[in-house]
Amino acid sequence: MTNLTPNSSFSLTLRLQIPNRVGMLAEVTKAIATSGGNFGQIDLVEQTRATSIREISVDAASTEHAETIVQAVKALPDIQVLDVYDRTFNLHRGGKISVTSRIALKSVSDLAMAYTPGVGRICNAIAENPEEVYNLTIKKNTVAIVTDGSAVLGLGNLGPEAALPVMEGKAMLFKEFAGIDAFPICLATQDTDKIIEAVKNIAPVFGGVNLEDIAAPRCFEIEAKLRQQLDIPIFHDDQHGTAIVTLAALFNALKLVNKSMTDIHIVINGAGAAGIAIARLLRKAGAEKIWLCDSKGILSTSRTDLTAEKSEFAVKAQGTLAGALQAADVFIGVSAPGVLTPEMVRSMAKDAIVFAMANPIPEIQPELIKDEVAIIATGRSDYPNQINNVLAFPGVFRGALDCRAATITTTMYLEAATAIASLVKPSDLNKEHIIPSVFDERVATAVAGAVQHAARQEGIARS
Amino acid sequence: MTNLTPNSSFSLTLRLQIPNRVGMLAEVTKAIATSGGNFGQIDLVEQTRATSIREISVDAASTEHAETIVQAVKALPDIQVLDVYDRTFNLHRGGKISVTSRIALKSVSDLAMAYTPGVGRICNAIAENPEEVYNLTIKKNTVAIVTDGSAVLGLGNLGPEAALPVMEGKAMLFKEFAGIDAFPICLATQDTDKIIEAVKNIAPVFGGVNLEDIAAPRCFEIEAKLRQQLDIPIFHDDQHGTAIVTLAALFNALKLVNKSMTDIHIVINGAGAAGIAIARLLRKAGAEKIWLCDSKGILSTSRTDLTAEKSEFAVKAQGTLAGALQAADVFIGVSAPGVLTPEMVRSMAKDAIVFAMANPIPEIQPELIKDEVAIIATGRSDYPNQINNVLAFPGVFRGALDCRAATITTTMYLEAATAIASLVKPSDLNKEHIIPSVFDERVATAVAGAVQHAARQEGIARS
Repeated sequence: MTNLTPNSSFSLTLRLQIPNRVGMLAEVTKAIATSGGNFGQIDLVEQTRATSIREISVDAASTEHAETIVQAVKALPDIQVLDVYDRTFNLHRGGKISVTSRIALKSVSDLAMAYTPGVGRICNAIAENPEEVYNLTIKKNTVAIVTDGSAVLGLGNLGPEAALPVMEGKAMLFKEFAGIDAFPICLATQDTDKIIEAVKNIAPVFGGVNLEDIAAPRCFEIEAKLRQQLDIPIFHDDQHGTAIVTLAALFNALKLVNKSMTDIHIVINGAGAAGIAIARLLRKAGAEKIWLCDSKGILSTSRTDLTAEKSEFAVKAQGTLAGALQAADVFIGVSAPGVLTPEMVRSMAKDAIVFAMANPIPEIQPELIKDEVAIIATGRSDYPNQINNVLAFPGVFRGALDCRAATITTTMYLEAATAIASLVKPSDLNKEHIIPSVFDERVATAVAGAVQHAARQEGIARS
Repeated sequence: MTNLTPNSSFSLTLRLQIPNRVGMLAEVTKAIATSGGNFGQIDLVEQTRATSIREISVDAASTEHAETIVQAVKALPDIQVLDVYDRTFNLHRGGKISVTSRIALKSVSDLAMAYTPGVGRICNAIAENPEEVYNLTIKKNTVAIVTDGSAVLGLGNLGPEAALPVMEGKAMLFKEFAGIDAFPICLATQDTDKIIEAVKNIAPVFGGVNLEDIAAPRCFEIEAKLRQQLDIPIFHDDQHGTAIVTLAALFNALKLVNKSMTDIHIVINGAGAAGIAIARLLRKAGAEKIWLCDSKGILSTSRTDLTAEKSEFAVKAQGTLAGALQAADVFIGVSAPGVLTPEMVRSMAKDAIVFAMANPIPEIQPELIKDEVAIIATGRSDYPNQINNVLAFPGVFRGALDCRAATITTTMYLEAATAIASLVKPSDLNKEHIIPSVFDERVATAVAGAVQHAARQEGIARS
């Protein structure tokens, strides 16, 4: 934790009363800087002859660090700390999304058209021709974000209520990056069959389902059964979103080190939803030597404790992660903070590629190996090469909804990854820029176009 | 149907090319007026030396009537009908609601606070203290509008997809009239137990549940079980919304005819969800003589075909609706078009009150009995005294959510009805004004205040 840079997730605002004397504000900024805080905005709230009231936003690296900063300011003579707000908590208060009306309701005539009796004509039209639900309702642009709260971020099984802030955030990202109306469905059950039944029962309103933060291995069965039983796209972002963006980054990384997908030895650490999905997609993309490791080491055919999904990737080799990594070309981590050591990295092949994607704390701090590897990527926004699902899922759904794809296929994943990778021009491609920024506005349309193209090629587009 | 006045639910826009000669527009308006169309807006789209292109909005009384109007215009020499739009269908295209973000997402810092890694702190806070879900998520202002599509408006069992336009409309009304974020849940099951399970499973996101257009008698069991098993307000609007507004109107109607609730003989026609709920609430409000009729006549103790709910109101009397109405003071219809005849109304007591609320076509056309009764009300906006649920449900939920009521009680219904009735000042009260307009801005806050007050009195407010 101590190595982490301050970031906005631990952001606070200090409301201070400061005497109007030369150097007083400088005292405050010095105290904050000395404590390691990063400055955001500094506002002057009000000023009298004697004092100023200012609000200073500061990013910290952790809750404890935030407290240290506050104490440093409180220790200053003559400075009064009037209030301390946690900016992140303030932002989430009351929730982050809203349901709004697309039509003004200001007159009896508006009501008669939008609601009774006029709406009855719309209902009848859909009853007579069920396909009309795509034209006359929200369905064609609406996605359910479904979780059971069993694997919330890297935090574990927090339950459906505690998962809701993530699902709201996801709904924001759907809107911001692809104009999609997404709504959180946090289920009060963690039973596989009941989850499947719940999603089937709520499906009429939705044009697609994004599964989120559901633990492995149940996530595999839930996704597979829903794909069989529903005629709308089902996408488990923790699996496929991660796999698409990882593959995109790997495409570009391999260009830089001049190695080919078929030749490299890839070690994936973490055999949960993301690890399995990455392995499957890399195999589809031509990778031939993929070793997966879980907390017990290499998924080996000699092991008797493997789930069906893990068995798909069982190899003859056996041993620890450290053993697996000797002479490996690529490390992909979707596991836990700090499990990769500099020694392990040094044992890898020349021009090693390390994707340390555990969130928020990577498998290894990039600073520790920056001179040992050709390329390093993480899941964090404060290092170069952020492998972020938001590069994939908005565009994947935009494309699938726009052509009314009945399902989402592996070909779409491959095309989406290729599209993302292609947005980094050869002249811009370098070891600190293998993947576009999440704010690159071309990404969602490029992905959507690729997905839609694949759907038409495969004959599963319905409009 | 032929007696109906034109209204916006059958509204069309005619795009016409009209020669620039004196009297040509008058020809068009005359043709439309002669066909019985009601004019809305008339727009000049473009004009050349020779011709004008105009768009004329016209309300018709039915689809057939709309076609008659179009044909009348097409029959005019020199007038060219360029296009005919159905305004109601246009309004519903793409759906009527949207999910929007309450926070801008424009920088890495915004993302780090609203989504990962910052959101993890919010998840942990809720996991540690589950009550925080009401502060840090959308839950406290979010209502699920749940249907199985089994009783859509008066149209019958159209299924979940065809019900969606109504649920979207309801969500608009929640937002417009009470600032509540409501989202449609249209279930692909009509099995009572499965509906209950589905609602329980999606409940974590919602601060309340509005059941809608679910057929009797299953609606009673669903509501009762959900009330037992969930700790958030459950409200079946077809029952309680209708009952509250009916009672409010009856309170004021009785003032005008100077009769008391305990003395009057009330006949309710229709023993579905609305009829039973009205009977229950009127009894709670002091009514002693309530006869319910269904399509087979009076709910009589001599009948063997009564459900449990119908049996609650079985009386010794038996016979038809016509028989029941002799000397009755009040008719309340929640049944079907045209079932009430002028003869039946004439057999009622002096100063009869008739609430003919079948939608969109009332049990009797008001014109037929306007001189025979003291007061007539309908469910329609184009006659005086509209008994409209929108007077009740937005305020009921606003009040219940604001004080985090664990449930909604009959006392709240009574208080809500009293609050609605009280908004018609004694000096304004007359036979054509027994109930406030749906656009009266005082209504939702008055109802919310009454509901919240009742919750605090009953000790079920949790904030």
